[in-house]
Amino acid sequence: MLEKIQNPNDIKTLDMLDLKELCKDLRSRIIEVTSKTGGHLAPSLGVVEVTVALLNVFDPLKNRIIWDVGHQSYAYKILTERNKAFENLRQYGGLSGFNSISESKYDAFGVGHSSTSLSAALGISVAKEQKQTPEKTIVVIGDGALTAGEAYEGLNNIGGLKKDIIVILNDNSMSISKNVGGIHHYLANVLSGRHYNRIKNDVWEMVQSLPRGVRNKIITGARRFEDSILNMIIPNSLFEDLGFRYIGPINGHDLPTAIKILKQVRNNISEPALVHMITKKGKGYEFAERDATKFHGISSFNNITGEINKKRVKHPKPSYSKLFGDTLTKIAEKDKDVVAITAAMCDGTGLSDFRDRFGDRFYDVGIAEQHAVTFAAGIASEGLKPYVAIYSTFLQRAYDQIIHDVALQKLPVRFAIDRAGLVGEDGPTHHGAFDISYLRCIPNMVIMAPKDGDELKRMLLFMNKYDKGPIAVRYPRGVIDEYNLKKERIRLGKFEVVYEGQKTAILCAGTSFKIGFEVYKKLKTKNIAPFLINARFIKPIDGDILNELYEKKVKNIITIEENAIYGGFGSAILEKCNELKINFAINRFGLPDEFVTYGDADILRKKIGLTAKNIYSLILIL
Amino acid sequence: MLEKIQNPNDIKTLDMLDLKELCKDLRSRIIEVTSKTGGHLAPSLGVVEVTVALLNVFDPLKNRIIWDVGHQSYAYKILTERNKAFENLRQYGGLSGFNSISESKYDAFGVGHSSTSLSAALGISVAKEQKQTPEKTIVVIGDGALTAGEAYEGLNNIGGLKKDIIVILNDNSMSISKNVGGIHHYLANVLSGRHYNRIKNDVWEMVQSLPRGVRNKIITGARRFEDSILNMIIPNSLFEDLGFRYIGPINGHDLPTAIKILKQVRNNISEPALVHMITKKGKGYEFAERDATKFHGISSFNNITGEINKKRVKHPKPSYSKLFGDTLTKIAEKDKDVVAITAAMCDGTGLSDFRDRFGDRFYDVGIAEQHAVTFAAGIASEGLKPYVAIYSTFLQRAYDQIIHDVALQKLPVRFAIDRAGLVGEDGPTHHGAFDISYLRCIPNMVIMAPKDGDELKRMLLFMNKYDKGPIAVRYPRGVIDEYNLKKERIRLGKFEVVYEGQKTAILCAGTSFKIGFEVYKKLKTKNIAPFLINARFIKPIDGDILNELYEKKVKNIITIEENAIYGGFGSAILEKCNELKINFAINRFGLPDEFVTYGDADILRKKIGLTAKNIYSLILIL
Repeated sequence: MLEKIQNPNDIKTLDMLDLKELCKDLRSRIIEVTSKTGGHLAPSLGVVEVTVALLNVFDPLKNRIIWDVGHQSYAYKILTERNKAFENLRQYGGLSGFNSISESKYDAFGVGHSSTSLSAALGISVAKEQKQTPEKTIVVIGDGALTAGEAYEGLNNIGGLKKDIIVILNDNSMSISKNVGGIHHYLANVLSGRHYNRIKNDVWEMVQSLPRGVRNKIITGARRFEDSILNMIIPNSLFEDLGFRYIGPINGHDLPTAIKILKQVRNNISEPALVHMITKKGKGYEFAERDATKFHGISSFNNITGEINKKRVKHPKPSYSKLFGDTLTKIAEKDKDVVAITAAMCDGTGLSDFRDRFGDRFYDVGIAEQHAVTFAAGIASEGLKPYVAIYSTFLQRAYDQIIHDVALQKLPVRFAIDRAGLVGEDGPTHHGAFDISYLRCIPNMVIMAPKDGDELKRMLLFMNKYDKGPIAVRYPRGVIDEYNLKKERIRLGKFEVVYEGQKTAILCAGTSFKIGFEVYKKLKTKNIAPFLINARFIKPIDGDILNELYEKKVKNIITIEENAIYGGFGSAILEKCNELKINFAINRFGLPDEFVTYGDADILRKKIGLTAKNIYSLILIL
Repeated sequence: MLEKIQNPNDIKTLDMLDLKELCKDLRSRIIEVTSKTGGHLAPSLGVVEVTVALLNVFDPLKNRIIWDVGHQSYAYKILTERNKAFENLRQYGGLSGFNSISESKYDAFGVGHSSTSLSAALGISVAKEQKQTPEKTIVVIGDGALTAGEAYEGLNNIGGLKKDIIVILNDNSMSISKNVGGIHHYLANVLSGRHYNRIKNDVWEMVQSLPRGVRNKIITGARRFEDSILNMIIPNSLFEDLGFRYIGPINGHDLPTAIKILKQVRNNISEPALVHMITKKGKGYEFAERDATKFHGISSFNNITGEINKKRVKHPKPSYSKLFGDTLTKIAEKDKDVVAITAAMCDGTGLSDFRDRFGDRFYDVGIAEQHAVTFAAGIASEGLKPYVAIYSTFLQRAYDQIIHDVALQKLPVRFAIDRAGLVGEDGPTHHGAFDISYLRCIPNMVIMAPKDGDELKRMLLFMNKYDKGPIAVRYPRGVIDEYNLKKERIRLGKFEVVYEGQKTAILCAGTSFKIGFEVYKKLKTKNIAPFLINARFIKPIDGDILNELYEKKVKNIITIEENAIYGGFGSAILEKCNELKINFAINRFGLPDEFVTYGDADILRKKIGLTAKNIYSLILIL
């Protein structure tokens, strides 16, 4: 059936049997490809019927469809002229794992981070209206994304302006981790009917207090009516309060009903409408249905057994995330003041064990980075030790809170910045490319970056004792590095000279040490011995070492980092040398002033020239 | 009465007559002082009774009180051992205009930006619980602040965790500008009873459809009960849905009732409670009641006439904000694609005339900077020209959206960054100290800064034509500068050489040109002629001019900017010279790596050494 679909218009011509067949084909295709490429399997399986229904009822070139986050849009990609390209999902040069306006005319708006869709849809809607080509605009957003402030800001503005927007609430009672917060309880109550029951009880109480003669007659009469009226007026209140028509809840896997409802909304409503669809993450693939968290974003797997394809290593090394989580758990065993905070990324940040061990000192605040940081500031203001574990790219959401609520008050909030640097297949929306630049300008901040796993551990111990203000440690996605090198104590603002040398000094920020070390070893084979320096602190910068290098007649400095070259670590070295009035020929290696695409991280490094080979070649001619 | 209050405990001992007397005294004191110092008069007058009631019922050292924004906390400051110091409100060395933990033990959490209070309160509440000293925690938040995503994130988490927090919703139907959005309509409906009426009608309809015999008897019986039951179950739904007990609405100027309700909540509720208080901004001061926007944040005024004290100037110059608004209005007259967006700062950003002229192309999205930026990206994706006017410090709230929704997609969103640099009396929470640093690292961004009013105009015209990606212009608070100098055309990435010279080049970013020009003129009297350069583009940097200076044997470069010295304009010059491999002795002047306090901006510049005198002295010895 899938092969018959040349473009989304073909979906309008299919009958119900064919449409159901199409859903099956889509699921097979998604499982087949993601089992090889990895990807967001469970979210995409959950909205197969929703996608087919949308494309059956609407024309995506007119009725722009914005997929929140976009990791659930695989069926949409396949159906919008990208079935063949889908083979190379998330590969360098292939299809993005999210929607992207540069990839397809069918992608109305680029996504990746959560909860932007409502705002973007409102922008598209008012622009079309202003251009006098008004069209209904459509959003598909998960219940998890509703915990984010921006989603609420968007709902609030759409509701206030009464624009012609359909919001499909794709409610699977989960974000990436288990969903949390008042809005989650609300949705759960809608489904369980508890709201309904509460109101019904109130009405019965009222009836009981009526004069006896009236009472009995009411009871008979009312029974027939209570359902309809209460259903009509009650459980939808939250969204209606914000200015939306509420329709639902609807079984999002019941294709005929989904199509019928969408047609009704298309034909009869021209104000904000929220269609509440209940779906199951991983639907139609047994393993994913059973463990939607594992199959949320997964690497390649065996599609018969559901087993993840692991590289065969005797003693597999843990990831930096896991090491962070394990270390913090150990610290928390001894230090009762430690509190861990995540924004809907408990597993991703390695905090699952911490949660299981110290549930009363663990907070998953939902996809709510702004709140997470101010919340941590509140905790720190009472003398406890909050650790906020957030990916570099998502911490951008809390930038004002880091400045205004944490740094300005010198509150010792500990930031564990995961996924710093290139993340690979998730691409430009998810690379941790800017944290050094955006944090370094903030007064009172301390920023560390470990060269390897052992150093991450020791930096976490250092952090736990440091209480003069905010302190951050940044580390990348992936398994830890390990070096058999001497281990100097961590001291505030002190770099580590790994090897003394001459003429040239290689200064490495964090795990870019790997590249620096490789360069060093290659140079040694040519009898060239530069200084190899592990720049543990990105702020404050170690001026003493720079002075020392200057005194030792070093001429060239090479800086290596996985952060934007503008405002990054190399820039900090330039500034420090400028302040100290010492002069070197400085060459900075880092991320270029452009957004780096998706694909295997080592391929990406090669493409941008961030390789040992390049640096080695440069040093040979210095 | 005010003189009898040594500390807030004294308020607990007063009887109702004395308490009312105290409210009067507080209003007089607030009007008296702000008429001299300027300040947030109307917000503070609106919560005098709320403040007295809170301090009558609670102990602020145990039941921490977090004032959202904090500009309404003048009565609180006066009553918490700061009456004398209040004389020097917002003056250098005096009291902050907001709450600050470094100012007083009674200030539980530093504020300034809106909508952080709920998150902070939750942090404080869980920390106290963890320390096994649980206490009820209190938030006072305005209805305007509820439009911000972070407030919702906080509500959602508090509601989910069911912590013992009272939220006083200070509802005056206004934020700084008129309030907007679905949440505003909801609150208005609560007050007007429209919700109530809608439900009542539904019930009556049900009754009409009952068997006739029953119907009449019900009507008689039900009338007596409808009020109580409907009031109980209906209009509070939104907050209850999020997990709060809702109490209200209550007249927030009715002191006995406010005290009674707070005592009831204190004694009977130990889960999240929202007390909805209706207040009037400017209450008790006729002029402020009549024009709460004018008296929201006001400079010094005559307290008899309500007239603002204006410096007597024959032809007063407009502010940069007004010039921006006027120019954009003119551009919009000719260009139908222009759209203006503000986040609750229509007057502050100079957009009132635009709004009045082009209401259908103007969007005040509420205090919702994240949404504002993604909304603009949506508009730009449809080919229109959105201008987002946000203060530098508030744009920090939308950092992720600038990167992820705008720059990554190369969408030509125009950013008008107001209040860039030191803002004076509002202090560290409001200085625009970081925008150059945090924007400069973002690929595809163009950043401009005009030296004066004329150049701002021309940059806006330039911006309107530029459509390759995002472009920002930053300009300060205050009246425009004007110079009688030659006017070069604006070209992308080109600095303007105002005066040719030798040996030294002074590179000025934006209105720091004022300082550079002063230095230049002083040096001329000593027959020293440096280059004076107006660095219009902060990104991209003009490498050609740097090369030219190098070829012309310039030895020294001085950079001047009003932005953090780390990652700022001077840092961009260092980077560019490094890339070009040209060498100067570079001295960077800007904001130091510390938070700059409040007070008159010129006093602040002097304190941090950002003065013509300092730079002049330096150049003399170069």
